[in-house]
Amino acid sequence: MYTPALQNLCIVMVETSHPGNIGSAARAMKTMGIKDLRLVTPRKPYSQETWALASGANDIVEQAKIVHSLPDALADCHYVIGASARSERTLRWTQMDARECGTTVAERLPNQKVALVFGRERTGLTNEELEHCNALVHIPMAFDFLSLNIAMSIQVLGYECAMAVREPPAPAEPEETLASSEAMEGFYTHLEQTLVDVRFLDPENPRLLMRRMRRLFGRANITTSEAGMLRGMLAAFAGRKFQHRSSSTT
Amino acid sequence: MYTPALQNLCIVMVETSHPGNIGSAARAMKTMGIKDLRLVTPRKPYSQETWALASGANDIVEQAKIVHSLPDALADCHYVIGASARSERTLRWTQMDARECGTTVAERLPNQKVALVFGRERTGLTNEELEHCNALVHIPMAFDFLSLNIAMSIQVLGYECAMAVREPPAPAEPEETLASSEAMEGFYTHLEQTLVDVRFLDPENPRLLMRRMRRLFGRANITTSEAGMLRGMLAAFAGRKFQHRSSSTT
Repeated sequence: MYTPALQNLCIVMVETSHPGNIGSAARAMKTMGIKDLRLVTPRKPYSQETWALASGANDIVEQAKIVHSLPDALADCHYVIGASARSERTLRWTQMDARECGTTVAERLPNQKVALVFGRERTGLTNEELEHCNALVHIPMAFDFLSLNIAMSIQVLGYECAMAVREPPAPAEPEETLASSEAMEGFYTHLEQTLVDVRFLDPENPRLLMRRMRRLFGRANITTSEAGMLRGMLAAFAGRKFQHRSSSTT
Repeated sequence: MYTPALQNLCIVMVETSHPGNIGSAARAMKTMGIKDLRLVTPRKPYSQETWALASGANDIVEQAKIVHSLPDALADCHYVIGASARSERTLRWTQMDARECGTTVAERLPNQKVALVFGRERTGLTNEELEHCNALVHIPMAFDFLSLNIAMSIQVLGYECAMAVREPPAPAEPEETLASSEAMEGFYTHLEQTLVDVRFLDPENPRLLMRRMRRLFGRANITTSEAGMLRGMLAAFAGRKFQHRSSSTT
């Protein structure tokens, strides 16, 4: 069920204050195929909001491991990445942005257990907790004074990990076929004739207008059935015209 | 204050049920430097939760434009991308994933106003609303039966847009401006009337045909001058018709 590629990735939330954030985090994880949630001394028990926000990811919450210290949460992990609200100006840790984090996780997961650690909603991780991290990750933001909600951060980093491990998707099987060049040439000829008939197009100098029509319809990737529909429209216009001619000659 | 690079990007939320989601969406937008929020008939007024979850992004909520229809929200937009829960197996719209969406937005923003449209929490966008979109975007997910919370989707797509504009791609210098939604609506109305006049379109049941036309022309990225040319063609067809009527009454 879960993406095997991410089965060695765990999410650690430290002293989370709002039980709703745990539910939102579980949903964010599940959408990205991550199932291993570890909670270090959450401040409150699960609430109705936890389950409401988990919304289909209840299994993640039910299976979450609750521990009393960060080292307990990280015991089986080989590589630990701490989430930081901003890029730290320090050489003490390897720094990465969210995209680099995805790449790093994807490179390590086949052989290592990797943890992404998220601190308290307001104050993040303490310096002591940061010492347990091999690297820090930040999500590039427009403002320094505003940060992402914790579940939002888990969503974005989880998304980057999922993107980094995914294999290029097989091309979608199209439900319709594109019109062939032959079919499109038939349409252009039909269009040109109809435009000449209504005197919108000067047959003495037809080139520019038809070129523009070719560019326009060429960009649209017309399907076979759409080409048929367009020619049906032209026939309707032409029918009108023939009707006109016959009435004007009577 | 806001990333100038994203000032031409707007977020449109259609008939949002939970006022809290509007607050979360505003915060998600602000962290990524997006400020233009448009709400199509939200189902409930703002609540305490709206402001609590906006958390520092109150200005986005206060300046949000509330309108009564999707076309009203999109009137000044040149390119519209609808959020879809999954990749549609169809050629009817240009399909992109979140990353491709970021690239597309970054390429267009210097010269165009771009909208990202998000549907109702449970049911998304209606087929009719999808007709107003030039393309669909999905966030790749691990499960088909679970979707991202709407504010989470805005966070991820906003993040991808912000990442994509960080390093400005060499923009293809457009030689022409794209027709606005308003101009395209004028064209569709004109087209529909002309098709009714030549009896190609049954006014009792016009929907399917016009939907197909919207999809077709929506994919083509019609320029302002092309829209004028198309309407000139329609006028030529209509002129023919009027000529016919006058001759048939003599």
